[in-house]
Amino acid sequence: MSSFISVSQNSDFPIENLPYGVFSTRTDTTRHIGVAIGDEILNLGEIADLFDGPELKNHQDVFRQATLNEFMTLPRPAWLEARARIQQLLSADYPLLRDNTDLRSRAFTSQSDAIMHLPAKIGDYTDFYSSIHHATNVGIMFRGKENALMPNWKWLPVGYHGRASSVVVSGTELKRPVGQTKAPEATEPSFGPSKLMDFELEMAFFVGGPENSLGTRVPIEKSEDRIFGVVLMNDWSARDIQAWEYVPLGPFLAKSFATTISPWIVSIEALRPYFVENPVQDPVPPQYLRHDDPFTLDIELAVSIRPDGDSEEHVVCKTNFKHLYWTLKQQLAHHTVNGCNLRPGDLLGSGTVSGPEEGAYGSMLELSWRGAKEVPVGNETRKFLKDGDEVNLSGTCTKNGVRIGFGECRGKLRPADV
Amino acid sequence: MSSFISVSQNSDFPIENLPYGVFSTRTDTTRHIGVAIGDEILNLGEIADLFDGPELKNHQDVFRQATLNEFMTLPRPAWLEARARIQQLLSADYPLLRDNTDLRSRAFTSQSDAIMHLPAKIGDYTDFYSSIHHATNVGIMFRGKENALMPNWKWLPVGYHGRASSVVVSGTELKRPVGQTKAPEATEPSFGPSKLMDFELEMAFFVGGPENSLGTRVPIEKSEDRIFGVVLMNDWSARDIQAWEYVPLGPFLAKSFATTISPWIVSIEALRPYFVENPVQDPVPPQYLRHDDPFTLDIELAVSIRPDGDSEEHVVCKTNFKHLYWTLKQQLAHHTVNGCNLRPGDLLGSGTVSGPEEGAYGSMLELSWRGAKEVPVGNETRKFLKDGDEVNLSGTCTKNGVRIGFGECRGKLRPADV
Repeated sequence: MSSFISVSQNSDFPIENLPYGVFSTRTDTTRHIGVAIGDEILNLGEIADLFDGPELKNHQDVFRQATLNEFMTLPRPAWLEARARIQQLLSADYPLLRDNTDLRSRAFTSQSDAIMHLPAKIGDYTDFYSSIHHATNVGIMFRGKENALMPNWKWLPVGYHGRASSVVVSGTELKRPVGQTKAPEATEPSFGPSKLMDFELEMAFFVGGPENSLGTRVPIEKSEDRIFGVVLMNDWSARDIQAWEYVPLGPFLAKSFATTISPWIVSIEALRPYFVENPVQDPVPPQYLRHDDPFTLDIELAVSIRPDGDSEEHVVCKTNFKHLYWTLKQQLAHHTVNGCNLRPGDLLGSGTVSGPEEGAYGSMLELSWRGAKEVPVGNETRKFLKDGDEVNLSGTCTKNGVRIGFGECRGKLRPADV
Repeated sequence: MSSFISVSQNSDFPIENLPYGVFSTRTDTTRHIGVAIGDEILNLGEIADLFDGPELKNHQDVFRQATLNEFMTLPRPAWLEARARIQQLLSADYPLLRDNTDLRSRAFTSQSDAIMHLPAKIGDYTDFYSSIHHATNVGIMFRGKENALMPNWKWLPVGYHGRASSVVVSGTELKRPVGQTKAPEATEPSFGPSKLMDFELEMAFFVGGPENSLGTRVPIEKSEDRIFGVVLMNDWSARDIQAWEYVPLGPFLAKSFATTISPWIVSIEALRPYFVENPVQDPVPPQYLRHDDPFTLDIELAVSIRPDGDSEEHVVCKTNFKHLYWTLKQQLAHHTVNGCNLRPGDLLGSGTVSGPEEGAYGSMLELSWRGAKEVPVGNETRKFLKDGDEVNLSGTCTKNGVRIGFGECRGKLRPADV
């Protein structure tokens, strides 16, 4: 398959990808829904009337909104129809858009001219803890090898509520947070900027489809109907604030100062070729969490750091999303088993993705083993993040010569306000 | 002060109260913003043009919305002006509304005809854990007397993120949730309806005022500008689901099936006469949490249960909101100290309010001491809630012969879907 829009070989956005995002430009500050193709963005608002299939012809307005929520709210067949139509409209051998110079000049924007925004209004943001390597590493550090995994961990996908208001899009700078911390030997907490700033390499998915009303659950057989698409996520963490505040109710201010996501939502349809067998789960989880179809994603992930003033970014972690123990379907089915209503635009994070080897750990906490080791970053080293560090995440899927990617998930750490 | 609308002596809504809510009726399904007065509701949309003071004359549209968010977003002087104007318009000796028969017939709706809705779109919902008696009781039950309070508890208002989508308004029925639980002696978890259903007596406040942008904090001296008003809240809890799931990241599905709030938001101005001295805090908390002005509310609280088929509700708990260790100002200042942005419409819960004596405990967990005692409920007894139980919360403030209240916060527990 090829597009009449030229797509370079190493682009994250060939015609097989077609992720959704929301953009504006310096000259047009209105937010538009777009699809990335090569270095361009196709503005779906400009071609909304071309969505004339049975699922979409009466809902063309969903493409003229400032967020994707209305499109996400449509049932899955509408997403499939949209993707098929966009793929057709962009393909090299389909003349409708290709040969319409006037429409093309209106409908395409260069990504370099675009300002990306949050793709959806996020109602609730939930973060899971689904990497067994990460949970084990953290468990060993804080509770010792014997009690590394909590007794519940292999029975259910542990998760918690996060802060929706502080989810920001790639490129947003963040400030080192201040707060209370307590050194192990201190008798009292002290107040000041966090000294143990960290990233967490995660992926997250946006919920779509009509809301399940409060009190009804989404059975795992239907869970795919509610999974709209996937982004990269950096769940920035202030480890010293976290250690002091989190008992007994979980992380709070250690996370709620910023959570960065990539702007382009890659749909499940685009990811379908990259599903691989699910990990063996022992013990076998309860019935409501069982499914046999492969729903584990083979996505190569990496984290890089660019120190302030450095012209290059340096990879500090390489891992793969397939190391997740719990699948996205299991996360969704678990989340609703008590009748909790999930709304289109809700964001469900995977938790830090760590692989089994040292270089595959998805946080500085693990890479530096709680500050015991120096992690090389170009000519420098780090135990945790320094002011001025810019962290970027990447994700790519490759199979049969086709490579799709997730774009950037970037954030630069600014000094604290004191 | 008196109103031309008759207000019975035991009404929660005299002219000194004037809480805000959102209502519709069976014949008019549009949602309107209203203020409760006696048994009536004054529809602010119908009198929006009478808000002609300097703060509101260019913002009259905030009263014609389906939620209070836009009104909440205005700065505090606008809230004060609105309250003063409504009090004037409703007073017995002010003719403008009193003598306009036509406008009165449009502007008033009987509360008995009204269907109440959530007063605001809740962006994020946070729950604190600010009652020292509750935290101590729970600590003793689960960790023993020596470790009852965690080391951080007296240094900061412990809180966590809750689920916004499942916050419902008084009167909404809820289903007993199903999920995983594990009996202490069992080797594996089992799956089914929660057997330990509980209420939590809480109050919560809605955030108002312009959003603090991400990365900026609200100093405690300015925190009152962000506290719009207060409601009753029942943070329904499935104790057995909670016990199994909550380590290490906090409560999740044990809470996210439903949280009930009262429909009427009582403003801080209405509550001002009922502020009393703050509790002595030892240790003295860090500077960013210190304030001297009394901001502890003397609100008599009660919980009643009406078993299915019983015509009466039976009080099981009587306590007072003044038992809170941390003030609302401290909660708000703490929440933003890391730069977390609070948006108008965000909801911040107090945590379960328990008093020092046995009858003043704000949950069945404490009243039955984890199921060790039977709690009398009319002719029956309870350790936890039974299907068909309707729980109602109440709150009243009395001083100098004036009594204001919070209305109802009611929910009936239906059997689980199995």
